[in-house]
Amino acid sequence: MMTHLTSKVLLILAGKTLATAESCTGGMIGQMLTAVPGSSNVYKGGIISYTNEIKHKLLGVDKTLLDREGAVSAPVAKAMAEGARQALNADIAVSVTGLAGPGGNDYGNPVGTVYIGYADDRGAEAVSFLFSGDRDAVRAQAAEAALELILSKN
Amino acid sequence: MMTHLTSKVLLILAGKTLATAESCTGGMIGQMLTAVPGSSNVYKGGIISYTNEIKHKLLGVDKTLLDREGAVSAPVAKAMAEGARQALNADIAVSVTGLAGPGGNDYGNPVGTVYIGYADDRGAEAVSFLFSGDRDAVRAQAAEAALELILSKN
Repeated sequence: MMTHLTSKVLLILAGKTLATAESCTGGMIGQMLTAVPGSSNVYKGGIISYTNEIKHKLLGVDKTLLDREGAVSAPVAKAMAEGARQALNADIAVSVTGLAGPGGNDYGNPVGTVYIGYADDRGAEAVSFLFSGDRDAVRAQAAEAALELILSKN
Repeated sequence: MMTHLTSKVLLILAGKTLATAESCTGGMIGQMLTAVPGSSNVYKGGIISYTNEIKHKLLGVDKTLLDREGAVSAPVAKAMAEGARQALNADIAVSVTGLAGPGGNDYGNPVGTVYIGYADDRGAEAVSFLFSGDRDAVRAQAAEAALELILSKN
């Protein structure tokens, strides 16, 4: 099912380029996309920004935004997608930042909170989710939601 | 087994920081590392450099080196690891570039050829592998070999 979804994304984006910015999924979306032979026609690559330092350094996410809103927030998801689109010079970028658990964070987000960002030439936006299940389940649902968001926008 | 290996890497690197640069594995190593709760103490993130443009733009791999040696080569693996270490300001970086198949490339590498790069404060090096099996099998073996290389160096 996941391979089907990934192939659908690559097919619908034919002629365009895609980049990813992953925090809590840690490379899962990139790994799924690149499981498909020929994916390099669409997928240019991504940045795994597992720490705030990397979100700032490589994706250009504002430090005060990270401090004020927390990494798990809609504005940061949006900024990550915008940053990935720019850093990788891609038509479209998708981002994931969330709290997969088991531990919490300092901003009071419940475990399972995930923000998915999307950016293209029309602008950027973020969608929020609250997934249930353990760390693996939250991460898998987040990756799937990111791919679904790309489909819904193209 | 893979989770055990990942946990071992994170444990042995306690107090140090790690970055990844992934081409043919496309984020698999990052995904494996971040499957472990608390991995952000060691793993800062990585760059999925699935295209040569990204290897150059984000990892600083020399364009003439990419043209002359091909992306699937020891010097490029080494340069990717050095580039990731610098770009992510990490103590240690590991890189993977290979030909997972089914298609070949213009440099005559057999499918299953993988170079793993490793960089730390003592310098950088690359190790070559020839894995058998299909695309999924080659990628999984490459990710495992990268983690094993980190263990052997620390």
